[in-house]
Amino acid sequence: MAQKPSIPKGTRDFTPRETAERNYIFDTIKSVFKTFGYAQIETPAMENLSTLLGKYGDEGDKLLYRILNSGDAFSGIDFDAYKQEEGQYNSKALSLQVCEKGLRYDLTVPFARFVVQHQNEISFPFKRFQIQPVWRADRPQKGRYREFYQCDVDAIGSRSQMCELELVQIVDRVFNKLGVNVLVKINNRKVLTGLAEICGAPDKVVDITVAIDKLEKVGLDAVKAELMEKGLSAEAIRTLEPVLTMSGDNDSKLDTMRRIMASSETGMKGLDELAELLSLIRASGVKTPCEIDLSLARGLNYYTGAIFEVKALDFQIGSICGGGRYDNLTGIFGLSDMSGVGVSFGADRIYDVLKGLDKFPANLQSGSELLIANLDPETLTMNLQLADALRARGISVEIYPEASKLKKQFDYADRKAIPFISINGSEELANGTVNIKDLKSGQQRSFPKEDSTAMAGFISGQAE
Amino acid sequence: MAQKPSIPKGTRDFTPRETAERNYIFDTIKSVFKTFGYAQIETPAMENLSTLLGKYGDEGDKLLYRILNSGDAFSGIDFDAYKQEEGQYNSKALSLQVCEKGLRYDLTVPFARFVVQHQNEISFPFKRFQIQPVWRADRPQKGRYREFYQCDVDAIGSRSQMCELELVQIVDRVFNKLGVNVLVKINNRKVLTGLAEICGAPDKVVDITVAIDKLEKVGLDAVKAELMEKGLSAEAIRTLEPVLTMSGDNDSKLDTMRRIMASSETGMKGLDELAELLSLIRASGVKTPCEIDLSLARGLNYYTGAIFEVKALDFQIGSICGGGRYDNLTGIFGLSDMSGVGVSFGADRIYDVLKGLDKFPANLQSGSELLIANLDPETLTMNLQLADALRARGISVEIYPEASKLKKQFDYADRKAIPFISINGSEELANGTVNIKDLKSGQQRSFPKEDSTAMAGFISGQAE
Repeated sequence: MAQKPSIPKGTRDFTPRETAERNYIFDTIKSVFKTFGYAQIETPAMENLSTLLGKYGDEGDKLLYRILNSGDAFSGIDFDAYKQEEGQYNSKALSLQVCEKGLRYDLTVPFARFVVQHQNEISFPFKRFQIQPVWRADRPQKGRYREFYQCDVDAIGSRSQMCELELVQIVDRVFNKLGVNVLVKINNRKVLTGLAEICGAPDKVVDITVAIDKLEKVGLDAVKAELMEKGLSAEAIRTLEPVLTMSGDNDSKLDTMRRIMASSETGMKGLDELAELLSLIRASGVKTPCEIDLSLARGLNYYTGAIFEVKALDFQIGSICGGGRYDNLTGIFGLSDMSGVGVSFGADRIYDVLKGLDKFPANLQSGSELLIANLDPETLTMNLQLADALRARGISVEIYPEASKLKKQFDYADRKAIPFISINGSEELANGTVNIKDLKSGQQRSFPKEDSTAMAGFISGQAE
Repeated sequence: MAQKPSIPKGTRDFTPRETAERNYIFDTIKSVFKTFGYAQIETPAMENLSTLLGKYGDEGDKLLYRILNSGDAFSGIDFDAYKQEEGQYNSKALSLQVCEKGLRYDLTVPFARFVVQHQNEISFPFKRFQIQPVWRADRPQKGRYREFYQCDVDAIGSRSQMCELELVQIVDRVFNKLGVNVLVKINNRKVLTGLAEICGAPDKVVDITVAIDKLEKVGLDAVKAELMEKGLSAEAIRTLEPVLTMSGDNDSKLDTMRRIMASSETGMKGLDELAELLSLIRASGVKTPCEIDLSLARGLNYYTGAIFEVKALDFQIGSICGGGRYDNLTGIFGLSDMSGVGVSFGADRIYDVLKGLDKFPANLQSGSELLIANLDPETLTMNLQLADALRARGISVEIYPEASKLKKQFDYADRKAIPFISINGSEELANGTVNIKDLKSGQQRSFPKEDSTAMAGFISGQAE
């Protein structure tokens, strides 16, 4: 019985080409993480719901994929007890009766759980990276999927700004390798707290940040009006004004803020952190522009120090990487006083950027580099040996599985974009030679059959 | 509120060391797949239950992880309609009401679904590999997990024995690279069918295969008794006896079988396939021993031609790789007449074999290769530049994040098994030199600070 096959909404198949392109991104990111001494870990796709629930807010709890308990999930449950009105049930409570496990929603909570669970095996500062899919029952839309990969890198167990520096260096190197021009925006939660404090409105951090964010769009007067509407006093707004209107480079911004922040210990601490990080960035030789941006409000709920966001300069898209410092992430699992800092690379958006800017390497190979034509049983042994010798040199080689017409074999190479073909028949067998043709340029060369080094050089485009 | 964190039964966290070891296996397998021109694809973790159900037998259906529908999964469901007796429900039917999706149970069914769904984008023969986790609600036990990786390689769209040969070559090369001695056992479903036919009992294929499998353990007489018990005639058993007692190499086994199989067209076809494959294996230069084994009953339900199983020779464990040819895998999704053949590498068992035989490379690095000590702000810039230069040469380097006591920094290197340390203070700064110490051998060397090539050579153990 034939079914018309499909996949769940918001999920994707990746074809050979897409997989090769995605692997190019993952491998680039991974290789940079490694040169900075970060070690890879992996955690299970399924976590206990007790680990996940309550960590992402009410909205997040709703977006968790829950796994039906295996065996008989329903027996013994008094469904009537969860009935609300005719045909309606208390879904939240009932789902806890039939589901104990959920799918990973991000990599941060599993990381915190991992650190607490393995704390006796770990040496701190612990520098880890993790590249795995996460799942969210979000409404699918362009660029938003229900299954997507996160690439997280975190250092936990040190308060040094050297950790922040490393993340900026990693961002610098990753996007340099990928050939994408980016801007790193930097903020600090303590500075935002300081601003709210000097306004005498320590509970208005979010309002102030949101207002600053609108500055470019709506102008100073509108922002001031909004702040007043949110309950800030005229004096507070006057205090804040130099910050709202400040311009220039990072140093002059720091100066402006220092002048008004003196009364806030937290704010001054934040400015010191910012200044130290910017000075480290200068010393490190990072080429990517880094800019203080007070409107960065990302993850305001749990970040306690630096906040980062990375924007592509030549392509219109949301932030492609972001993160910050959190002082008590593992506290929820019973391990307090563990300061950490990390960023997450958004593989799907980076993919869109590389596609949009045409930055994928031209020679990304998702299949064979060489097709050896299959002519007849007599030359098969010779061709098998040829394939073997080239594979030993790392060349991707396939022999056409059947001794079909040459036209069919050429078509196959063409459809699969295999760049080289080797056709060796009785004449080559007698002469002990091998023909290899570059299907793009049309160039054809003949090699002594022992000289697989020269053949591999020809195929990989390296001079001999 | 602190929770004691844990992960679901049958799932695992992988520490940096374990992840590095597992990646070594995946990367080795992947690199071999690639040199044979197989292209990687990925499919979603979640599939529609309609894709998965009925493909793995009743037992398999029970082991599928089902995902609770998001939003309000329960409303509108008449639970009473599924009630069987007090407190019991028809779990199978009810779960279909609240779950539309399930987790991938293997990579074969998603592959079949992929081929049918993307048939117009695919060039056949389609050679793909896939390395992804699968989930089964099996009872966890030693070596059996609820989340584990499969590494599948398949060619679909050709009936040529060249495809079977390639799989044997891939097995040969993978285990050669991993340093594990293996034996490839080969059977053919058509030969088993033939044996049953010449016994006049075409429905007794499984009984005959099971009986042959017991031969070594229980002896000829017991096997004959069992076959009689299963309903085979005395004459049928007499016909079969030469096969039961056959020994020697593959050619003599083929001879023995050919002598009794003449009356079964299917059987003779199977023997031709076996003979052709063995002759191709000989021509290809495969070094791994390959042996006809009629007791191989693996996947008897869907294999239609070759059947493979790979055993480790020096380590006691079940098969570490296996597969076969299936003539109609995509038929369930409406695409008929697509013959394919594939094998699956069992990463977890291969891991156990490499651990047991101590075959992981000694220098598998799961973190930094070099720790640069952090002495004071004065030397930090120099050390940052040093780190940068070495990273550019692919060396994994970290700078200790704080200017702590040297003892603490040495301890850190020791606990994290970082093999080299570089301590550069005011003297080195003045001299323009860099010290690097091999913490294992105790050897220490001084380099001009520009000579990162020589430093990288010292660290990676390469002669300069």
